[in-house]
Amino acid sequence: MKHLIPLLSLLLFSPGIFAELLGTGDLGVVIEREPAAIQIVNTTYKNALSRISDLGDLSHASVVFSRDARYAFIFGRDGGLTKIDLLENKVAKRIIQAGNSIGGAISQDGRLIAVSNYTPGGVKVFSTETLELIADIPALYGDQQLSKVVGLVDAPNQKFIFSLFDAGEIWVADLKEPARPQIQKFKNIGKQPYDALLSPDGRYYIAGLFGDRGLALLDLWSPEQGVKRILPDYGKNDEKMPVYKMPHLEGWAMAGNLMFVPAVGQHEVLVVNQNTWQLIKRIPVIGQPVFVMARPDGRHIWVNFAFPDNAQVQIIDTKNLQIIQSLTPGKAVLHMEFTPRGEHVWVSARDDNQVIVYDTSSFKEIARLPANKPSGIFFSSRAHKMGL
Amino acid sequence: MKHLIPLLSLLLFSPGIFAELLGTGDLGVVIEREPAAIQIVNTTYKNALSRISDLGDLSHASVVFSRDARYAFIFGRDGGLTKIDLLENKVAKRIIQAGNSIGGAISQDGRLIAVSNYTPGGVKVFSTETLELIADIPALYGDQQLSKVVGLVDAPNQKFIFSLFDAGEIWVADLKEPARPQIQKFKNIGKQPYDALLSPDGRYYIAGLFGDRGLALLDLWSPEQGVKRILPDYGKNDEKMPVYKMPHLEGWAMAGNLMFVPAVGQHEVLVVNQNTWQLIKRIPVIGQPVFVMARPDGRHIWVNFAFPDNAQVQIIDTKNLQIIQSLTPGKAVLHMEFTPRGEHVWVSARDDNQVIVYDTSSFKEIARLPANKPSGIFFSSRAHKMGL
Repeated sequence: MKHLIPLLSLLLFSPGIFAELLGTGDLGVVIEREPAAIQIVNTTYKNALSRISDLGDLSHASVVFSRDARYAFIFGRDGGLTKIDLLENKVAKRIIQAGNSIGGAISQDGRLIAVSNYTPGGVKVFSTETLELIADIPALYGDQQLSKVVGLVDAPNQKFIFSLFDAGEIWVADLKEPARPQIQKFKNIGKQPYDALLSPDGRYYIAGLFGDRGLALLDLWSPEQGVKRILPDYGKNDEKMPVYKMPHLEGWAMAGNLMFVPAVGQHEVLVVNQNTWQLIKRIPVIGQPVFVMARPDGRHIWVNFAFPDNAQVQIIDTKNLQIIQSLTPGKAVLHMEFTPRGEHVWVSARDDNQVIVYDTSSFKEIARLPANKPSGIFFSSRAHKMGL
Repeated sequence: MKHLIPLLSLLLFSPGIFAELLGTGDLGVVIEREPAAIQIVNTTYKNALSRISDLGDLSHASVVFSRDARYAFIFGRDGGLTKIDLLENKVAKRIIQAGNSIGGAISQDGRLIAVSNYTPGGVKVFSTETLELIADIPALYGDQQLSKVVGLVDAPNQKFIFSLFDAGEIWVADLKEPARPQIQKFKNIGKQPYDALLSPDGRYYIAGLFGDRGLALLDLWSPEQGVKRILPDYGKNDEKMPVYKMPHLEGWAMAGNLMFVPAVGQHEVLVVNQNTWQLIKRIPVIGQPVFVMARPDGRHIWVNFAFPDNAQVQIIDTKNLQIIQSLTPGKAVLHMEFTPRGEHVWVSARDDNQVIVYDTSSFKEIARLPANKPSGIFFSSRAHKMGL
């Protein structure tokens, strides 16, 4: 019988051998700011599975998922890049890759993680398998200066696209040969691009300009046409109203051929025709919009707001462009994430230490989960989407 | 030590305890027709993980996935409904639910499976958990006759939509109370609807008409407007050219505001403006198109063909509406499935007993897997999409 003991020990202490078999299609990550941690959550049972701590500074942290939806990659504000194993509820690997970072993306083929950094300014590309550095793209401009990098997204054909805040440039990096990125640079796109988004089909890259009016638009199907300025009245706030928070651009919503954009510093959501890039309507809302997000079927747009209106959420019907519902989930609503097919939405209320789950059809609250100063919420179905 | 033996036996024979921990985001199912079986495949490693046999008649079988992407539900032509556990590589449950069935769908919330049946004509709704019958919707029309049911899809707000072939009707079933479906019927929609599709955003349901010209369109955002006829020159073949195979409608492609439609019995793919539902171009192709499928980014359309041109695949660029590539994957190409972010496409060549994987950027073949008379290919990312 002796031989059984080492075998049994092996079984008992092999990492993960007693981890429960789970499909990973209904998992997600909730970022907790204080104390900094993440919760792994399940969207079918609407519960938390585990909490993982000691992940550094998670203010403004964002998350992408491996193509098998088993691993989450957390981009910390302090340059930390952490690979979480959602099945074994543990850190698979963690590195400090820069001094100050602002977000990241995963390549179309799932093999590469790119991180955009403020300090030192540039993009670093890592292996998703090992987190080893594969490529370093310093954001050089002018007289050997380094620019902060923002608005990093993945795009079709194994590309990453990002904006240089200090240089006023958009770069398209082709990573088909991962160690030898091919960079196409678009210069003079406008002053101080501060964030950007990719349309859900991967065709349009649009950057917001902190130091200019309008938005910078790159049509990736026609890069030879260069970057154009659209919505010339948009942005740079010279009104009397203070801007409490620059809106997040990743949250811009495309529904059919309409795009819904948070107005900077205004109590308005702008509706833009995506065929002509013309403003077709301004919808008055309760406060300065931060995230403007389409339900997956495009029928409703959910909007949250900057201080002092950040206890509220408003919902716009995209058929008649009217507000049809206002909700008060809790204090300091920071983020919203729809379940993949849109039947529910999870909303974080930081100052109430709660995540609230709504039925998107009836607008009824159906669950409430405790969380410590929750901010971003990210579901594993993002693994299968471009530009996030 | 004796107590170790039952413990060890328990460990060794507990189902699944030695199954490997796997993310389920990159799994898929390939249908093999002869002998009838399925392969569970992995799209990261481009390999087969296992084969499961004894699943009845799998000609024209189709597959949907549970919202956690752990289970695949196989709809067999013989009325068999099989729940496959992709992690444990086994049948979790199997029932024969009717005499002759044609496909199915999974509800938005993931709790219900609906199957459309020829014999007896109607839709049956089962629990995804147990495969117990929850609701039975006989397709009654006229003088207590039962119609064959086709074109069944799931839709937002916990609905199923389907067409009655013999009755010429479209029904919208609201399953918010699963045991008490609320049915909205649209009559006189055209003769013999034979298949249908839902637009990717879940707004438009479009049925092809075997016995009439044109297509039946229901705008689910405006059901009060009823079903309209669009493309009045489309369909019912009265030309001299024989129709070798009615095209599959689930394969119709939406790219931006264009819809790409296989012409019935013609060597053409039709391009329709989705804003006006007007035909804007006929693109000549090598044969009678069967599946016309958009790459996830909408830039390319892949087309396969009916006999005798079914060894070929052609690719249309949606920017200039031209054919840019022709491939010959193998004999009797039956189906194509894109990886979730579109970097690869898997193509089944039935009479070559092969599944061929292409890089969609270079059009190069990158892998080839043996399979017995492969037909349909279904990836688990479908768990997160509507209308499939």
